[in-house]
Amino acid sequence: MTDPLRLGIAGLGTVGTGVVRIIRQKANLLAERAGRPVQITAVSARSRGKERGVNLSDYAWEDDPVALAQRDDVDVFVELMGGHDGPAKHATEAAIAAGKDVVTANKALLAHHGHALALAAEDAGRVIRFEAAVAGGIPVVKALTEGLAGNDMTRVMGVMNGTCNYILTRMQSAGLPYDEVFQEASDLGYLEADPQLDVGGIDAAHKLALLSAIAFGTQVDFGSVDIEGIGAITIEDINHAADMGFRIKLLGVAQMTGRGLEQRMTPCLVPASSPLGQLEGGTNMVVLEGDNVEQIVLRGPGAGMGPTASAVMGDVMDIARGFRIPVFGRPAASLERSKPAAAGTPAPYYLRMSLEDKPGALAKVATALGEAGISIDRMRQYDHAGPDAPVLIVTHKAGRDDLARALDVIPRLGVVTGAPIALRIENV
Amino acid sequence: MTDPLRLGIAGLGTVGTGVVRIIRQKANLLAERAGRPVQITAVSARSRGKERGVNLSDYAWEDDPVALAQRDDVDVFVELMGGHDGPAKHATEAAIAAGKDVVTANKALLAHHGHALALAAEDAGRVIRFEAAVAGGIPVVKALTEGLAGNDMTRVMGVMNGTCNYILTRMQSAGLPYDEVFQEASDLGYLEADPQLDVGGIDAAHKLALLSAIAFGTQVDFGSVDIEGIGAITIEDINHAADMGFRIKLLGVAQMTGRGLEQRMTPCLVPASSPLGQLEGGTNMVVLEGDNVEQIVLRGPGAGMGPTASAVMGDVMDIARGFRIPVFGRPAASLERSKPAAAGTPAPYYLRMSLEDKPGALAKVATALGEAGISIDRMRQYDHAGPDAPVLIVTHKAGRDDLARALDVIPRLGVVTGAPIALRIENV
Repeated sequence: MTDPLRLGIAGLGTVGTGVVRIIRQKANLLAERAGRPVQITAVSARSRGKERGVNLSDYAWEDDPVALAQRDDVDVFVELMGGHDGPAKHATEAAIAAGKDVVTANKALLAHHGHALALAAEDAGRVIRFEAAVAGGIPVVKALTEGLAGNDMTRVMGVMNGTCNYILTRMQSAGLPYDEVFQEASDLGYLEADPQLDVGGIDAAHKLALLSAIAFGTQVDFGSVDIEGIGAITIEDINHAADMGFRIKLLGVAQMTGRGLEQRMTPCLVPASSPLGQLEGGTNMVVLEGDNVEQIVLRGPGAGMGPTASAVMGDVMDIARGFRIPVFGRPAASLERSKPAAAGTPAPYYLRMSLEDKPGALAKVATALGEAGISIDRMRQYDHAGPDAPVLIVTHKAGRDDLARALDVIPRLGVVTGAPIALRIENV
Repeated sequence: MTDPLRLGIAGLGTVGTGVVRIIRQKANLLAERAGRPVQITAVSARSRGKERGVNLSDYAWEDDPVALAQRDDVDVFVELMGGHDGPAKHATEAAIAAGKDVVTANKALLAHHGHALALAAEDAGRVIRFEAAVAGGIPVVKALTEGLAGNDMTRVMGVMNGTCNYILTRMQSAGLPYDEVFQEASDLGYLEADPQLDVGGIDAAHKLALLSAIAFGTQVDFGSVDIEGIGAITIEDINHAADMGFRIKLLGVAQMTGRGLEQRMTPCLVPASSPLGQLEGGTNMVVLEGDNVEQIVLRGPGAGMGPTASAVMGDVMDIARGFRIPVFGRPAASLERSKPAAAGTPAPYYLRMSLEDKPGALAKVATALGEAGISIDRMRQYDHAGPDAPVLIVTHKAGRDDLARALDVIPRLGVVTGAPIALRIENV
């Protein structure tokens, strides 16, 4: 197989431009590694005239990504447009229908339509690869699908949204409130056009749902991920957690339990001394646990031109080298529907609430917790200037249903201002 | 391709037994992932009668691994015997000559004969895969060869001998001298039959040489690795380093410099707060740096039945799935001979020596360093009970030739007892 591999690239933003740059700069190296030339034949983007700092004159231009995906001189459709519906979806479907392989960085597309696309691709004898969709430059899809193929996976965890981790670690290091750091991140261009994708945990949940499908052999089930963003985390929470030896991270956890598949993307407390606890700034980390391999930790840049383009190129090179496996590591037709776990594995929780300065207020809260079957490990009341006293409780292991019951009752006791915050303390 | 993939396994120690166990326990899962059954047809080991806790009665037995490698009913020869010459080499050569693919965990074999074996295998259209040879369960060969195939690699680093890292971290945490912890490690069965393979840095250097060949497209050149073991490290060195915010690690570094390929496996000081500095116990860590991906860090168990067997199975599954690439990621015939760098990149060094209690002794040492072109960043003389005073010096960046010159002169000044210790301070 020494024919060139011919790419059609749709989307010429940061990542697309990065891919073009690598293919132009490293033609010889790539050909030597792949055993055949890797070429771009055509490209497509919203604006043809935009200056991108790369020479596109060697490539055919298509205004319509669907037309690009159907070109006879394209073997692999490289989808770098983004968006879970609209052009990215249509063009990917068109590519598969036209007998093309697909490389995509689009986590939203696959989180929503991954199973249907995988079925279509495998019916057509085509592959879809998506390393760049999860954790930027870290080759985690490869590690999980291929390197750990001799394991029954037990748990997959990760900090997979660099913006959230930047915000949380910056709040701690600079002692700044959420809103101020959010604005900083926005000014620095770290946020998606819809910031809820980042700080609402949705982007990270997309990624978790993809890893989960590979790890546990289930159909991608983004709809069952329990998602909670970081918007309610205060600098006080971060400081309280630090006092107890923890860090707050937007942590994804997927595990197969006796009750079904548990998938969560929520702010959690993790030990400050753990690899996840030590993760600073925009870096991503994924933890893969399997019955044989025990625990593998992968860490690297979760975004950016170079790292994401590196992940896209890893997929392109695999296809150029003739590597063809099912999209999620087993035939899509054999993937079972996930049975979502009704409630999370019990865990200790961190609770924070504002107690009104009334006699017996704390006792009422403690009683409500006790009645929900939740026992208290530690409790601390902080000095306060205003009328309300911040109270911080660490529970013993509690079931999520019990906790939900308590959190439902407590605001109605007439002694607490606002809604209590509850963060899971994760054993990582 | 739905024919079974048939394995012949030579070597039934911990790893071989682990592989047999996985294939017996996960037949369905492996078949689903590979798209075809993965079976063992024959095995070989030194002692047939030994109780291994797995049922071998379904497999043909061969006393001679060469005969195993040549069997018609074997597609893949799985070499888990070890040793860089003798039976492992003969059987691997026989397997290739007989048209078999090879999966091996044998770092010594490949470090010494990897280039010749790769040439032979590629001539015969066969693959050799060796994930288990480097860093146990961590899929680092895969990450480097495949996931990062779109990068020019700039540096590869790692702590790749768990026993050395166990010894060094245990010395620090328990405050015990080297000899005592070495004995502990020996009692715990952590050491190779020839402990110099571990504590002498040889085993880790084998691994580095393999990664280096992939990263830089050079022929494996174990002979040019600058190797230094951990036997001269004292608890005082560890404590001094800790005082300055460093940890001592047996660290491998491979980088392509303007002067040629630099490969080192030596004890180094690394920042205590870096991922490498934080690595405790028998865990391995590999850092991969490329022009696009920036830095990827992989961490996991470097040894043990489950993790190593997991790595072997990753390779077996790749072959079962039809993935075939050159042994070192580019055709062996195209790999250049490495041009070893004459001297290491300049770096700051940690020096420790025993100064006799004579007037002007320290001045003589400082002068000798200055005459070799080495300037001193920090110097500290410790309280001492005996006649000699431990002196600790941190230099500014120094070339290795300059340092060697100074280390040659200093013991002949008549003011120092024993040989000075010099450890590189690595920017990780």
